[in-house]
Amino acid sequence: MTDTNQLTLTTDQFESLPVHEQAQMLRTASTENKRLWLRVLALDDVVDVLQQFKPAEQEELLKLLDARVHADVKALLAWAEDVATGLMNPRYLSARPDMTIQETLLYVREQATSRTSAKTSATSYIYVVRHDDQKLLGIVTSKQLIAASGTALVQDIMFTDLVTVRPDCDQEEIARIFHEHKHLKLKAIPVVDADGRMKGVVSLDDIVEVVRKEATEDIQKMGGMEALDLPYMTTGIMKMVRKRAIFLVTLFLGEMLTATVMTVYQDTLSKFIALAVFMPLIMSAGGNAGSQSTTLVIRGMALGEIRLSYWWKVMRREVVIGTILGIILGAVALLRILAFHDLFGQYDDHFAPLTVAVILSVALVVLWGNIAGSLLPFGLKLLRLDPAVSSNPAVSVFVDVTGLLIYFNVSRLILVGVAGVAL
Amino acid sequence: MTDTNQLTLTTDQFESLPVHEQAQMLRTASTENKRLWLRVLALDDVVDVLQQFKPAEQEELLKLLDARVHADVKALLAWAEDVATGLMNPRYLSARPDMTIQETLLYVREQATSRTSAKTSATSYIYVVRHDDQKLLGIVTSKQLIAASGTALVQDIMFTDLVTVRPDCDQEEIARIFHEHKHLKLKAIPVVDADGRMKGVVSLDDIVEVVRKEATEDIQKMGGMEALDLPYMTTGIMKMVRKRAIFLVTLFLGEMLTATVMTVYQDTLSKFIALAVFMPLIMSAGGNAGSQSTTLVIRGMALGEIRLSYWWKVMRREVVIGTILGIILGAVALLRILAFHDLFGQYDDHFAPLTVAVILSVALVVLWGNIAGSLLPFGLKLLRLDPAVSSNPAVSVFVDVTGLLIYFNVSRLILVGVAGVAL
Repeated sequence: MTDTNQLTLTTDQFESLPVHEQAQMLRTASTENKRLWLRVLALDDVVDVLQQFKPAEQEELLKLLDARVHADVKALLAWAEDVATGLMNPRYLSARPDMTIQETLLYVREQATSRTSAKTSATSYIYVVRHDDQKLLGIVTSKQLIAASGTALVQDIMFTDLVTVRPDCDQEEIARIFHEHKHLKLKAIPVVDADGRMKGVVSLDDIVEVVRKEATEDIQKMGGMEALDLPYMTTGIMKMVRKRAIFLVTLFLGEMLTATVMTVYQDTLSKFIALAVFMPLIMSAGGNAGSQSTTLVIRGMALGEIRLSYWWKVMRREVVIGTILGIILGAVALLRILAFHDLFGQYDDHFAPLTVAVILSVALVVLWGNIAGSLLPFGLKLLRLDPAVSSNPAVSVFVDVTGLLIYFNVSRLILVGVAGVAL
Repeated sequence: MTDTNQLTLTTDQFESLPVHEQAQMLRTASTENKRLWLRVLALDDVVDVLQQFKPAEQEELLKLLDARVHADVKALLAWAEDVATGLMNPRYLSARPDMTIQETLLYVREQATSRTSAKTSATSYIYVVRHDDQKLLGIVTSKQLIAASGTALVQDIMFTDLVTVRPDCDQEEIARIFHEHKHLKLKAIPVVDADGRMKGVVSLDDIVEVVRKEATEDIQKMGGMEALDLPYMTTGIMKMVRKRAIFLVTLFLGEMLTATVMTVYQDTLSKFIALAVFMPLIMSAGGNAGSQSTTLVIRGMALGEIRLSYWWKVMRREVVIGTILGIILGAVALLRILAFHDLFGQYDDHFAPLTVAVILSVALVVLWGNIAGSLLPFGLKLLRLDPAVSSNPAVSVFVDVTGLLIYFNVSRLILVGVAGVAL
């Protein structure tokens, strides 16, 4: 038996934990350990952990920090996590434009070895700011500093064609800005206010996490549920049920319209029981085609490839694609019906009109699934809702209900109207 | 009217194009422009563009490069794009362990200002390698170089606790390694061979693109189609049809089993036409629950949160969650049936046994959808297939067919077996 508290972690181990586990550890740690652990984290990471606590608990933890750090963290906490200010590190290496390279090297060395340097943004950029108002003038890289002659001035070698973001810029937008400028291989983007004053630095490693998290959220929404806050295995059973049940019940209520539709067409159905046989096939074909379209459009929107104004272009494409896919699936359905008719003598009653009704419905429902699946995300975006809510299950439910209407009406038209079968 | 060729781009504009547009431009450009454009790209980007061409065309373009670059690009081309060697930049800043900081600064300055420096990896790390065999010994950051005393030796300040990858390491795996070490805020990971010799550098900006691309591929597969190679708007109509039709036809053939099942139970169905009315509702509820489970498990696997060995843990969770969700949806179905029965006098024949059959089927099919949806990705992974192929539509089709069997058998059992209704 050892006397060691099994909750004791090295600061390194603590630093490497996911943020919700760090919070868990902090809850049960001794005051000494809390202080120790909070001090190893970079400023933006302290903020991330503190956001896991209630305001009163945050205050307690804030007291454990140095006075200077305390103020910075508090200012950051006031911002939502998912805009630039919540993501950025307010500490960065700086220089002034009229310094020589030699002076800058000394100045940077001083900053890099100071007491709070561990909390400084780990990028290799040095931000050139005006002394009186901290206005950002340019950037020099540490590679440039090393390569340049010691007597040159910072303002002569600095980059002035800068990519910057505002403090309230959404994190997804920042990720897109990195993406659009990927040929510049930016390691960080400075955050400046409306007057061009330097506020902090969002670095690329934070953005990788943003890209991963946003993809996960979109995937979960597209799977027909609320996005989880935690990894699958650490989400509690009841929390998981809540995240899933709301959507599942909503979809269920929507799908109940199919029962209403079927009650209306119950007479047709009992007369031609063979229509019921092909019902799941037709609804599923439309739902699957719709899932494909909606997936393509939602992802295209998230990547910034598809804009709201493209809706007409997208719809034209999907009409063409849906028509071709409808014809292909209609042909497959025809082969199936012919084969089972010849082999097993199935579908003998009203064989010809029934066959025409089924293959026509397959083609139309697939086309309709394509149109509905591609337009739904545009509609949601127009209403300023998240397009990802137009999930695969939601599209399936919508196409199920409307597809049934198409199927029953096409069938009645052909069986009763064209073939003259008495109802 | 100007005389300017509208295809003329500045090298900056060219560099910022997506890779398939760069290839497009290169196809139609003059030899002079081709040479100009290829020279501005970093080595790994040249390789990406060349991979868009056929081997014979690649040879033509390779001739336009400097002899030294030529050899490097050729070596890289021999590798698949999606492992470390295809992603890495073989040029990096290096130093030797026994150099002083002062010497290293001069040596790095020399490398950074040399003719081919534009093609050097843009990270701020300097790799310390042994002179005779290029074995990687450590890393110093440029911030360290600036902060350290000029007379110290590189080997005294370098980091030796290194995160490295092998040349054949898959790009998804590299992304995961960056993720696992995110507290280190790594900007790049060195690629070393089995003997520890330095081969090149994979930098974080390449990884952001990998994370984004892998998420897009997974999302498209989960939407029930083959992943696209190009953005939605630039994929040709016929290519899009091919990517979608294969899956759609496969799903359609699978869903045809529902028609077979229904033909078998046609007598039950024509006796109790009300059973047909609730069929879409029950199938959809199972499919939606299955979509949720399969989405959660696939994404959890992609993020490395769920391993193959967790299948039993995951299934136990999903059984509990599925039971609760099944009870909730069963209750909603009960309310619906009671309401419509009282309000509209629907479902009068065999009301009680029919109601029991429907709500029991809803609960069982939801539970079954949960189990099937969560286990399918494990099955695919066990067969070394991509779990993302267990798409939402695929799960829906599977649950449709099996859910129908559950529904008809439960209904027969209760209507005929328990309530004693004559068939």
